[in-house]
Amino acid sequence: MTAQPLFALTPGEPAGIGPDLCLLLAQQAQPHPLVAVASRDLLAERATQLGVAIELIPAGPGAWPHQSSPAGSLYVWDTPLAAPVAAGELNQANAAYVLETLTRAAQGCLDGHFAGMITAPVHKGVINDAGIAFSGHTEFLADLTRSEQVVMMLATRGLRVALVTTHLPLKDVAAAITAERLARVTRILHADLREKFGIDQPRILVCGLNPHAGEGGHLGREEIEIIEPTLDLLRSEGINLIGPLPADTLFTPKHLEHCDAVLAMYHDQGLPVLKFKGFGAAVNVTLGLPIIRTSVDHGTALDLAGSGKVDSGSLQVALETAYAMAASQAQQN
Amino acid sequence: MTAQPLFALTPGEPAGIGPDLCLLLAQQAQPHPLVAVASRDLLAERATQLGVAIELIPAGPGAWPHQSSPAGSLYVWDTPLAAPVAAGELNQANAAYVLETLTRAAQGCLDGHFAGMITAPVHKGVINDAGIAFSGHTEFLADLTRSEQVVMMLATRGLRVALVTTHLPLKDVAAAITAERLARVTRILHADLREKFGIDQPRILVCGLNPHAGEGGHLGREEIEIIEPTLDLLRSEGINLIGPLPADTLFTPKHLEHCDAVLAMYHDQGLPVLKFKGFGAAVNVTLGLPIIRTSVDHGTALDLAGSGKVDSGSLQVALETAYAMAASQAQQN
Repeated sequence: MTAQPLFALTPGEPAGIGPDLCLLLAQQAQPHPLVAVASRDLLAERATQLGVAIELIPAGPGAWPHQSSPAGSLYVWDTPLAAPVAAGELNQANAAYVLETLTRAAQGCLDGHFAGMITAPVHKGVINDAGIAFSGHTEFLADLTRSEQVVMMLATRGLRVALVTTHLPLKDVAAAITAERLARVTRILHADLREKFGIDQPRILVCGLNPHAGEGGHLGREEIEIIEPTLDLLRSEGINLIGPLPADTLFTPKHLEHCDAVLAMYHDQGLPVLKFKGFGAAVNVTLGLPIIRTSVDHGTALDLAGSGKVDSGSLQVALETAYAMAASQAQQN
Repeated sequence: MTAQPLFALTPGEPAGIGPDLCLLLAQQAQPHPLVAVASRDLLAERATQLGVAIELIPAGPGAWPHQSSPAGSLYVWDTPLAAPVAAGELNQANAAYVLETLTRAAQGCLDGHFAGMITAPVHKGVINDAGIAFSGHTEFLADLTRSEQVVMMLATRGLRVALVTTHLPLKDVAAAITAERLARVTRILHADLREKFGIDQPRILVCGLNPHAGEGGHLGREEIEIIEPTLDLLRSEGINLIGPLPADTLFTPKHLEHCDAVLAMYHDQGLPVLKFKGFGAAVNVTLGLPIIRTSVDHGTALDLAGSGKVDSGSLQVALETAYAMAASQAQQN
């Protein structure tokens, strides 16, 4: 029997629901070995608070597991906290701990120990309050892996939506839709659908920027001046693109039936539909990295930490997606 | 038996699918008398083309029907074309005809002959090409009825979405979200949900403008500077508003369960979800008019005119909505 691919799981903000979700998830056996990169004490204490039985099995450099652990157990690469954690209470002292878990997981992917990493939510505010510049998982991993451009894609059963721009004020979106950015993002989406999702000839639906995709220039000229010429260039490279289409008619069965992903121009054009369709079971995938990274689609939910009232549906989908991506990638290589 | 409320139906662009939809619809008996404001010849010819049997019954000033017509028949207020129509072929000569049908229907509402009007799609381009300034049904009816501000709302079963801005290039949206506009639109939405939809205490969910509703100012300041103060002012007037909420988490069951309408800041923030949910059965309602007006949510589909391959689902919902609105309004008065 060949060794199973190994995955890293980061519980993120220790005062949030990330640790709870990891513990709940470990109640079921996973198809692959999974290493939580986290404080062992934190997981043990949260398990006690939740009344959940868990066996925490040490793992880490020199001691990588070769098979998945049984239900009710979890491998842990112990990563010490700076200060004790009370569920629901942010503490700047542990900001560096959170980043250390991400660094260990990502570096472990780069070094070939992990086939991919799955992240639970972090809290940007407390990391920034600790004096560390941090604008999110995605940007942190892009820096760490020296990736020039990454692409945020959300996925749920039957729908994938990638974004040309992400966390920008709405007033800055139109100016950010440049031919260069659109081309870079589209190429990454195309390449990763092939390499990480095993789709030979991905078919991508592209939204216009303006209502009715500009209606022939009456409602904005970016489609005519930027989007259409760029899509034509990309088609000449062999990328299968349909659009630009009006966003309000694109998300209907006629169009979605035969597509592998939708490329939306901005956050609130693409994500409301995806989260409406996939509520509780959507996953955030970072494309353009040299590693596989998936994430839950929700926040730290501080008020629910330690309560037992959490739904691990999104984390479950994030794991399944990472497993499937790693299998696709292994087949390509 | 008291007289039944009478409704006007405008088939819109004569070369499009509007006439087809009206003929298909007339195959079923309607609960209220319905007068198509259109060319009798056009309807007769299109019926022949479609192979549909129809009895066209003359109606109009001095001859208003008092009861609904049987299945397979339709009242027609004959409104002459300027030129014969070939299905699928636009002709500027008939632009004035299209506007005349709208004027008759709307004036008939103002004069109390009609309880409401239901519109099939027009083609803006051909009307403009004919040298007539025209930016859409909504604006035309606002002018004709001297309404200062109207609000576009789309509705489907279980979801209503109203828009603060509509057909603007995306780059102009942020600047158009002023306290004054937001307050005017919200007051109209609140008043019409009460008066035309019979909802005593409407509960309205309001989207932020920026991703994550600005995330405390990190992703845009319009929520802090404009939206929140305006919502507070409106709450002090007794309007029940929840938000501003991030658009990508607002459209989930937790929030939607107890709401009567969503107020989105712009077209592609609110309509993709609505059309995804309601595909083929969504209706466009113009609020803020002194009359009741509903419309289909699709275009003229010139390529399908005369083909018989059309779905009258949206027109059916537009009719049902107009009937329900008229009944609500009658109860209030």
